[in-house]
Amino acid sequence: MDSVNTLEPTRTVEELKELRRLTGDENGAQRVAFTETWAKARRWLEEKARAAGVEVERDAAGNLWMTLRGKSEEALLIGGHIDSVPNGGWLDGCLNTLAGLEILRRIGTQYDGRPPVTVRLVDWADEEGARFGKSLFGSSACSGNLDMAEARGLTDKDGVTLPGALHGQGIDFENVKESNRQLAEAAAYLELHVEQGPVLLDLELPLGAVLGTFGVERHALTFHGQAAHSGSTPMNRRKDAFLAAAKMSPEIYRITERHGGVCTIGSCLTKPGIVTSVVEECRITLDQRHLEAAALAAMLGEAREASKRFAQEGNVTVAWERLWQIEPIPFDDELIDLCDAAIQETCGKSHRLPSGPLHDAAEVARSRIPTVMMFVQSLHGISHNKIEDTREEHLELAVRAFDRLASTAMEWIEAR
Amino acid sequence: MDSVNTLEPTRTVEELKELRRLTGDENGAQRVAFTETWAKARRWLEEKARAAGVEVERDAAGNLWMTLRGKSEEALLIGGHIDSVPNGGWLDGCLNTLAGLEILRRIGTQYDGRPPVTVRLVDWADEEGARFGKSLFGSSACSGNLDMAEARGLTDKDGVTLPGALHGQGIDFENVKESNRQLAEAAAYLELHVEQGPVLLDLELPLGAVLGTFGVERHALTFHGQAAHSGSTPMNRRKDAFLAAAKMSPEIYRITERHGGVCTIGSCLTKPGIVTSVVEECRITLDQRHLEAAALAAMLGEAREASKRFAQEGNVTVAWERLWQIEPIPFDDELIDLCDAAIQETCGKSHRLPSGPLHDAAEVARSRIPTVMMFVQSLHGISHNKIEDTREEHLELAVRAFDRLASTAMEWIEAR
Repeated sequence: MDSVNTLEPTRTVEELKELRRLTGDENGAQRVAFTETWAKARRWLEEKARAAGVEVERDAAGNLWMTLRGKSEEALLIGGHIDSVPNGGWLDGCLNTLAGLEILRRIGTQYDGRPPVTVRLVDWADEEGARFGKSLFGSSACSGNLDMAEARGLTDKDGVTLPGALHGQGIDFENVKESNRQLAEAAAYLELHVEQGPVLLDLELPLGAVLGTFGVERHALTFHGQAAHSGSTPMNRRKDAFLAAAKMSPEIYRITERHGGVCTIGSCLTKPGIVTSVVEECRITLDQRHLEAAALAAMLGEAREASKRFAQEGNVTVAWERLWQIEPIPFDDELIDLCDAAIQETCGKSHRLPSGPLHDAAEVARSRIPTVMMFVQSLHGISHNKIEDTREEHLELAVRAFDRLASTAMEWIEAR
Repeated sequence: MDSVNTLEPTRTVEELKELRRLTGDENGAQRVAFTETWAKARRWLEEKARAAGVEVERDAAGNLWMTLRGKSEEALLIGGHIDSVPNGGWLDGCLNTLAGLEILRRIGTQYDGRPPVTVRLVDWADEEGARFGKSLFGSSACSGNLDMAEARGLTDKDGVTLPGALHGQGIDFENVKESNRQLAEAAAYLELHVEQGPVLLDLELPLGAVLGTFGVERHALTFHGQAAHSGSTPMNRRKDAFLAAAKMSPEIYRITERHGGVCTIGSCLTKPGIVTSVVEECRITLDQRHLEAAALAAMLGEAREASKRFAQEGNVTVAWERLWQIEPIPFDDELIDLCDAAIQETCGKSHRLPSGPLHDAAEVARSRIPTVMMFVQSLHGISHNKIEDTREEHLELAVRAFDRLASTAMEWIEAR
């Protein structure tokens, strides 16, 4: 280890606990964006950042930038979000923010306040989208990908509009994309996050390098047959919408065996849905995710073909309706290598994995800024819940490995 | 044909139309039991019966008996029900009643009012159970199978109890089983009915001999797995309750391929039932029917085994809950042969088939009175609906074949 490395991972764990006491209750974290509890968390963060000697600035979209100016204006960005869902976990989002703060302190000390490249910690505004139902607000405004027309119409459950809520925070909705200038000198973006899944837990590994975020194809499939009396209708005369829909379930497991990725049938509705009638109409939802666009397209194509085959076999029809889609967002190959190396040097073994959920990092990567994420093991493979947890020794390893990655990323920026 | 055969099947069709005009509207038949429209239909029927020279009597359960006394007290019974569901079809129940009336006329004429055996037409009270949710009231009271405790507690949607409604019709609920004495001299029971399914339609046959009514095993199966994020949970880590439940659907088709009978999954409920989560809990209903008790038991056993296997394969659990059951009720072999022969002599070709729905005939057969039913083709394989229909030429063939069966059944009673 470097002799001037003053990194204190235990302080990060202490600060996470302090934040939990300050902004959580018996139901979990309550730092919903644009609320007083969220504002309190940010004031607490700002104070710590100023104490560490970094400049603090809020951009046009409400993102909070903490900057340690370097010899070069080229900037290494470290991102996180201190906002949470209601009754959220104690780590989701703020682990990275506080690890990033600790890394700013270490770099500031090591380089006497003037590192070779600029280092910036950003606390994105409203990553979760808990209040207005649309996630990644701050980062998508900053990246320029925010759909202004859609965002303008968003309302919370009390009928408050997003522009109205932003106005209350001193933010002019119509100007939020001006925050894009913050990315002008960005040379790399790093984000640490709890995995929110069971992959590292199963592998008994503390940390993993993230390859990118999955593309998603989300559809509703409606099979239509004919209602018929369950007692008087012979099997070979039936037009059983449930039979055709049910065959899709093992099929999506076969599709992921061939292509990787994940597929989920999360909902099934039957009509008339009574014990004495063959199902006339069956609607299922299908969520398909993959890191590679071509594989995702193939998975979708195979699911479509299978649904038509099952419909034909059962003398029913099938109709597809797209609910949502997003393309896969791969991270930067060189930064993935650096992340992997940082993990290996810290704890001996690494693993490369995709991210199922979206993150602010995806918005930054879509802006063609080299990006990578590091995942730390989740204990229950669960997030957005007060039982979300990670072993403290893994949190400390995460801070160490992420700090190492920050160092090598700075070198990588300098060397370009 | 016999020279004294004065049967007029076209009169039956005319009387069916007359009854439809009298007691139906643009939504279908409205002869719900224990209503004024039903009472009107019965007065109309009684009048015709008296005009045909038969004795009319109402029993303790409200069943209407129309008797042509013979040289022997041993009785051939012909049964039907003039009641309908609300917005019902024009044939369900009353086809047999009016065919039976025509046969009484023919026998009365042929034997000059004194046939060798007694012939009785019974109009069962409340076959449909439309108002109190429990079918076969009159026939089950008469057979002695009516569950008095259960029936005593039945109420209609306005809170009127079944005993209260019966009181309004001059029937003492506590004495309804005294109607059983009507069966004392019964030697055989015949019932004609529309098929209410598509079997004869598919075979392009007008008539079929019914082998008995299906036994039914009706269950709810609840598969329990674990909710998990659709993006971050690898396929091999899932406990997908829908996957296990879905595998049951093709399986029930394989089960009926091995055993005959019918199986239906009519309803599927998923929890949490959202696009972004693996299904934690999936509840399906399973309705299984077969004419043979051993086969029905085997079908149930195989479904149980399959559900356990699918649950185990998917790392989920399964729980079974019985919703309802009834044993198969086979009809009399000799009467089935007579029915088959009567159909063949009338229209050249017959077919033997089970009945999916229950009928009053099942209650009579449970009283160990030799019983058979004859089915006539349904045009849409549908009943309990105003679109229920049968071609008039098939109705006429039905009256002819059923009359033939009445003749051979009388001979069969005499010969015993």
